[in-house]
Amino acid sequence: MNTSDFRKHAHELVDWMADYFENVEDLPVLPDIKPGDILKQLPNSAPEKAESFDAIFKDFKDVIMPGITHWESPNFMAYFPANKSKASVLAEMLMSTLGSQCMIWLTSPSAAELEEQVMIWIREMLGLSDEYTGVIQDTASTATLSALLTAREKVTNFSINKEGFNEQKFTVYASSEIHSSIEKAVKIAGFGASQFRQVSVDENFAMRSDILAETIEKDIADGFTPVCVISAIGTTSTTAIDPISKISEICKKHKIWHHVDAAYAGTALVLPELRWMAEGVDDADSFVFNPHKWMFTNFDCTAYFVKDPVALVNTFTITPDYLKTSVDEEVKNYRDWGIPLGRRFRALKLWFVIREMGVEGIQKKIREHVALGKWLAKQVIDHPDFELMAPVPLNTVCFRFTSAKEDRLDDINEQIMNTINKSGRLFFTQTKLLDQFTLRLAFGNTNLEAYHVENAWNLIQEVSKIHKQDA
Amino acid sequence: MNTSDFRKHAHELVDWMADYFENVEDLPVLPDIKPGDILKQLPNSAPEKAESFDAIFKDFKDVIMPGITHWESPNFMAYFPANKSKASVLAEMLMSTLGSQCMIWLTSPSAAELEEQVMIWIREMLGLSDEYTGVIQDTASTATLSALLTAREKVTNFSINKEGFNEQKFTVYASSEIHSSIEKAVKIAGFGASQFRQVSVDENFAMRSDILAETIEKDIADGFTPVCVISAIGTTSTTAIDPISKISEICKKHKIWHHVDAAYAGTALVLPELRWMAEGVDDADSFVFNPHKWMFTNFDCTAYFVKDPVALVNTFTITPDYLKTSVDEEVKNYRDWGIPLGRRFRALKLWFVIREMGVEGIQKKIREHVALGKWLAKQVIDHPDFELMAPVPLNTVCFRFTSAKEDRLDDINEQIMNTINKSGRLFFTQTKLLDQFTLRLAFGNTNLEAYHVENAWNLIQEVSKIHKQDA
Repeated sequence: MNTSDFRKHAHELVDWMADYFENVEDLPVLPDIKPGDILKQLPNSAPEKAESFDAIFKDFKDVIMPGITHWESPNFMAYFPANKSKASVLAEMLMSTLGSQCMIWLTSPSAAELEEQVMIWIREMLGLSDEYTGVIQDTASTATLSALLTAREKVTNFSINKEGFNEQKFTVYASSEIHSSIEKAVKIAGFGASQFRQVSVDENFAMRSDILAETIEKDIADGFTPVCVISAIGTTSTTAIDPISKISEICKKHKIWHHVDAAYAGTALVLPELRWMAEGVDDADSFVFNPHKWMFTNFDCTAYFVKDPVALVNTFTITPDYLKTSVDEEVKNYRDWGIPLGRRFRALKLWFVIREMGVEGIQKKIREHVALGKWLAKQVIDHPDFELMAPVPLNTVCFRFTSAKEDRLDDINEQIMNTINKSGRLFFTQTKLLDQFTLRLAFGNTNLEAYHVENAWNLIQEVSKIHKQDA
Repeated sequence: MNTSDFRKHAHELVDWMADYFENVEDLPVLPDIKPGDILKQLPNSAPEKAESFDAIFKDFKDVIMPGITHWESPNFMAYFPANKSKASVLAEMLMSTLGSQCMIWLTSPSAAELEEQVMIWIREMLGLSDEYTGVIQDTASTATLSALLTAREKVTNFSINKEGFNEQKFTVYASSEIHSSIEKAVKIAGFGASQFRQVSVDENFAMRSDILAETIEKDIADGFTPVCVISAIGTTSTTAIDPISKISEICKKHKIWHHVDAAYAGTALVLPELRWMAEGVDDADSFVFNPHKWMFTNFDCTAYFVKDPVALVNTFTITPDYLKTSVDEEVKNYRDWGIPLGRRFRALKLWFVIREMGVEGIQKKIREHVALGKWLAKQVIDHPDFELMAPVPLNTVCFRFTSAKEDRLDDINEQIMNTINKSGRLFFTQTKLLDQFTLRLAFGNTNLEAYHVENAWNLIQEVSKIHKQDA
C-alpha cells in the first residue's frame, strides 16, 4: 500500500470509527451468534495474491463486526470495563504509526522520559507516597507476577534466580475473594498452589486480618517462609476493600512483601473522599492498578508502583552485549522492570487522556459512576423482590432476585441474566457469593449516563416479573 | 471529547500519519538528544483542567517527536526491526476503536475465531505440521516462558503447580548465543540460572548438538531432570541456525521438551528455499516467531505454536465463577493459553496484513531482504579493510573494520558506529563475537530498498577511511 492509498483508507476508517462511536449504543451488546459462526465464513488458507483494502474492510464490516461484543457500549456492564476515551484512541493511532519499541531509553527516549513523568503524575493523582516509583506494564496479571517474583528474590537474597528452589517452602497469602490471576502467578513463580493461603473474608468479603496474622504465625511455626501478602482494594466479585493498613502492619512485623492489587478500583483514588480505601498503602511494598479498566485509557495499560525498584530490576535484569548502550548508567531502561523485553509506547495514551480530561474531568466521571452504583444499590434494597448481596463501596452492584422458592433462585437468576444478555439490550455477568448465583453489574463505561443504569434496572425488573408469577 | 471533535482530530492525525510515512526517511534515525532533554520539558504535575486537543497534539509534535527513534525509517538497521505495514496500522485503528478485550470467546467471538483461523493460515504459510496449534501472544519472551512452564509441569505431572519445587533439580539447555530472555525465563520459572546450560557453538555460532547430547547425559547421570531444550532458528547476534533436526532427535530420546525460538527468522519460512533452516521442527514440541519483527505486523504480535495445547492450558487454567460461560466446552478461551488474562484483538492486524500483501507479497519482500543481506556480505568479503564475522544465512550482517592495529580494532569499530549513529543518517547496533566488537546491520524494514543498503555501506566505508589513515 502506498502512502496516498493509506491516506485515503485511513480517512475512510476515521469516518467509520466516528460513526461507530455515535451508533454503538444502539447495537446489540452481545452478538447473537453461535460458536463457529464466524469461523465458517473464513477461508481455510491465506490468499496467495494481494487483496484490495476495500475487500478487506468490507469483510471486516460484514464478517467480523457481527461477532463483536461491544465493550464500547454504555450498555456493557459485564466484568469490569476495558474502557477508553477518544483521546486514547487518537494516541493509539500515533503509537501504531511510530511503531516505537520502548525496551530501552535509546530505542525511544521520549517514551522512556514521558513514562517516568506520567507515572509521577499518576502517583500524585492517586495520593500515593513519593517513595513509590512507577512503571507501565501490560496487565495486572503480569505486574502481580512481577511483584511476587521480586518478593521471592528479595526474601532469598536472589538465590532462587541463581540456584533455583531447594527444600525451603514459601507461602503466599490473599483473601479467598482475590482475583484468579494471583493463584496463576503463585504457580508460575514455582511456589505451588498448596502453599497459597486463601484467607477467609468477613461479611463484607474483605480479608480477615486476624486470620491472616494467625495463619502467618502458624506457617512460620511450621517452618514455612512467608513471601508475600496480596491484598485487594476492590475485589473482582464485589469490589470489597481489604484492611490494607492492618495488613501492612502484619507484613512489616514479619518482613513480608505486601502487594496491593487495586486493578480496577485504583482509579477511584483520584477522589479524596475515597482515599480511606487505601489507608496503609504507603506502608506496602507495591501497588498495581489498570488505567485500562477505569481511567479511560485503551487496553493494555497497567500502572505498577514499587518501593524498591532496585530489587525489581535486579530480579529481571540481563544485559547482553547487543543491548548495551553508552547511557545505561544515566537512564531508565524499562526492559528490566518487567517480564516481556518488548514494550509499546503506552505512556503516550496516558498523557493524552490525562491532559484531555484533566484531573477534574477524570474525578467528575468517577464520581458519577460511583453515584450510579449507590443509586442502584438503593433501588435493590428498596425493592421487595431483590436482595443486595454485598456492600457497594464503588460502582459494582451484586444482587439477586429472591421472590421465588429458595431452591430455584440460582436457576431463575441465571435465566434472568441469560434472557437479558440474549436480548442484546444489556450485557452483564454473574458471580457466586455465599454459594449463590448473583447478578453483577459494573458501571465504569466512559459513555455511561444515568439513563443507561435506569434502563438496565427497568429491564431486570421487567424480566424478573415473569419468574415471580412462576413462584 | 464529543464524536464530531473526534472525527475532526482523527482526520488531522491521519494526514499527519501519512505525511510521516512520506517523510520519515529524511528524519534523523536516532534523535540528537541527551538523557533528561525530554523530561525537563514536561510539567511536574498533571493538569487540573482539561486541555484542548490542539495543545496536546502540538506538544506531541514539538516535545515528543524530537526524542523519537524512528523504527519506521528504512535507515533503521539496528537490533531486529519492529516492522509494520500500513495495513497493520489501519487494523490498529480499528482495534483501538472496538477496544475488544479478548480473554474469552464470549468477550469477543470474532476475535477468538479469527485468531484460530489466522493461526492455521500462518502454520500453513510457514510449512509447519498440522500437529501444531497456534495462539497469539504478546512477545516471544512471554511465549518462551509459557513453553518452559508447560515443559516444567508436563515433566513433573503438574506437581510444581500443585506442590511447588522440592529437592529435585531440573536443567534447561540452549546455546551460548541464545537470546537473553531465555535466561530470564529460566529464572522466573524457578529453575535457577545455575541449572541453565549454555551449550557451546560451532564456528557458525550454531549449537553443537554433540555437546548438547553429552551435557544432557552427564546431567542425567548426576541426578538432574532435563526439562527443556531451547534451540534457535536465527540467533539474535548473527541469525545462526541451530541444528534443529539433531536437537529434536536428542530431545525425543530423553523425552525433553524441545522449544524452537525463531522469533525473528521464523517469517523467512514463508520461502520454500529457506525451509532447510527448520528441518526437524515438526519433531519439536513448540515453536515461536514474531510477526511483529519481520511479518509487517505492528508490535506486539507473537505467534506461538504448540503440539500439546492441553498441557499448555492445564498449566495456566483457572476458571473462577465470574469467568464461566455456557459455551466453555465448545470454544477456545485463549485466556488459558498464556500468562496475561487480558488480550488485545491482535488477530485483526495479522488478517489485514496477510490479505493486503498476499502470501506472494510477503514472500517477495522477504526474498528482497535476504538478497540485500547476501549483497552486503559479498561487499564486505570483497573489501580489504573489512572482515565478515559470521555467516549470513538471512539478512543480518555482522562484520568489522580491520585495517588498523589489532588492539585498537574494538575502539575503532565502536567509534565508527557512534559517529554514524550520531549523524542521524543511519542507525545500527553492535554485538560481540569471539570477544570482538562487531558491527551488525539487519535488513528487515518494510520500506527498505537496495539504495538504503548501498548508502549504508558507502557511509560505513567513508567513515572508516579516517581510521585507516590513523592506522
